[in-house]
Amino acid sequence: MNLLEIKEFLGENLERTVALMQSELRSDIPILDATNRSLLDHAGKLVRPVLALLVAGACGTPNADSVRFAAASELLHNATLLHDDVVDGSAERRGRPTVMSLLGNPASVLVGDFWLVKCIRCLLAADRYSEPVIRLFAKTLSDLAEGEMLQLQKAGSCDTTEEDYLRIIYCKTASLFEATCRSAALSVSAPEELAAAVTEYAVRLGTAFQIRDDMLDYSGGDALGKPVGQDLREGKITLPLLCALQEVPEEEALAIRRKVASIPDDATAEEEVRAFVLARGGLDGAAVRLDGYIRAAIDALAPLPDSREKSYLADMARFVGARMN
Amino acid sequence: MNLLEIKEFLGENLERTVALMQSELRSDIPILDATNRSLLDHAGKLVRPVLALLVAGACGTPNADSVRFAAASELLHNATLLHDDVVDGSAERRGRPTVMSLLGNPASVLVGDFWLVKCIRCLLAADRYSEPVIRLFAKTLSDLAEGEMLQLQKAGSCDTTEEDYLRIIYCKTASLFEATCRSAALSVSAPEELAAAVTEYAVRLGTAFQIRDDMLDYSGGDALGKPVGQDLREGKITLPLLCALQEVPEEEALAIRRKVASIPDDATAEEEVRAFVLARGGLDGAAVRLDGYIRAAIDALAPLPDSREKSYLADMARFVGARMN
Repeated sequence: MNLLEIKEFLGENLERTVALMQSELRSDIPILDATNRSLLDHAGKLVRPVLALLVAGACGTPNADSVRFAAASELLHNATLLHDDVVDGSAERRGRPTVMSLLGNPASVLVGDFWLVKCIRCLLAADRYSEPVIRLFAKTLSDLAEGEMLQLQKAGSCDTTEEDYLRIIYCKTASLFEATCRSAALSVSAPEELAAAVTEYAVRLGTAFQIRDDMLDYSGGDALGKPVGQDLREGKITLPLLCALQEVPEEEALAIRRKVASIPDDATAEEEVRAFVLARGGLDGAAVRLDGYIRAAIDALAPLPDSREKSYLADMARFVGARMN
Repeated sequence: MNLLEIKEFLGENLERTVALMQSELRSDIPILDATNRSLLDHAGKLVRPVLALLVAGACGTPNADSVRFAAASELLHNATLLHDDVVDGSAERRGRPTVMSLLGNPASVLVGDFWLVKCIRCLLAADRYSEPVIRLFAKTLSDLAEGEMLQLQKAGSCDTTEEDYLRIIYCKTASLFEATCRSAALSVSAPEELAAAVTEYAVRLGTAFQIRDDMLDYSGGDALGKPVGQDLREGKITLPLLCALQEVPEEEALAIRRKVASIPDDATAEEEVRAFVLARGGLDGAAVRLDGYIRAAIDALAPLPDSREKSYLADMARFVGARMN
């Protein structure tokens, strides 16, 4: 299987989702319109709309609200990327310069705010009562801000525990997967048993997605479309490092954490920590955890009736586990 | 009259509004919680909640939804200030260092996102059907982002017309005044005639408020709590300059506009443009316009039944016209 096959299967509904984003993002302010178009032209993998439409199809018959909520997921995702680029100072994303690097922090913040409003508008346009869905997405936006703030705080002190890490990645990534899949189930009025199942699936898949992302920050190459090693440079302690730290005595682990804290001032420290992670099997340790979440995500799908969508959702989990960018 | 007297008159409802903001903004992430507390401790004039509660009282009996919407206005206002500080690179606000200058751009963006979510949560908590109010505030957030983007674009080219200027200040300021007053009218189920009147009042008052702000950027002193002359340094052409430009032949006006464009590279240009504005009566011209909007705002209140709140709303308009910070 590949993502392209699933996108072809989703066909018109995925096209409608992209078209809805395009029409929402039009603006008569030239600089804003041009920026939105350029972002849409390089829209990435559209993982969230794909998941939303598969969930809607696995739980019922996708409708106009399924498309609206799918677009809302992707709009919120991109809004937070635009804000993240300011947070992380990222110059490159999806192999291209970011809005932040082209137009500066201000534009990245404002364009992000604009996409956020369009997300809310898609939810407000729903044929069904939209408050529960707005509530879902509002919780996710709150999680995203709290997760990033926790990460910023932890990056300063280098005392991130595995518990902190799991909370951060729930907030940063899994929460939006959750809102995406649960809102898709709501769009087709799925019974709570199925909605609960896809929610469980989404949280596990989102966790796996971020773990894979954090692994790629150690091992990824050019396919990534963004520089490797950024987490470490920003003092972020992620799962590969946490796994490697578990393999050594407490005192050595403490010394490595101190080395992470010194990275901004010490160019060799970064290379040393990276070498430590690889030597102590940090990537293998993370891969084992990743595999556990992928399996658990697929298991969560059990209550869903058999369908092509259901088997594609399992494929999506495998795809997330193996993705190279 | 002074603002303090009105705040005392509003009493418990204003206290409830502040208490609601405080409880919404609690977080178990220490850095986020501390930042929110510090921002709340220096909350500024609370002009928007004051307007909201006066409008609710002028159109009916303020209730729990009036308090929620009043809090939502102030939360959205502060969220956009936090994002604006990134946009403007502002180091000082309300006489104190900004979150941006203390914790950096990332925190300013994320704390802003967090306040935005809390605004949405206040609207979602309403006893009444909250979609129309969410729609109002979503439009305002869209206006805010578009207005700032238009301002950024215009600041680069220095070709701001009065039409551009009026659109920018509607988007930046008057739109939120509109959402504040209209939502307050909706909270007490005001008849459309009254809702329309306070909406009209709000747009005119918001326009006046921003004109006064732009005048203070030329004439304000220490009471302002932020540096004077910032607009010009950022290439922003506001009403005092536009009024002065109308007093001179087209060729001279063009030369002045070119001088504004050169300010980032030419330290003397800023002082020359400022001197031009003062010499050509730019502040007097702006004051005449300001006065027109203040009168129009008060006129718009005519359909409201007489009440202490109504007369305080007129006082608020006079206050906005005369404020020194």
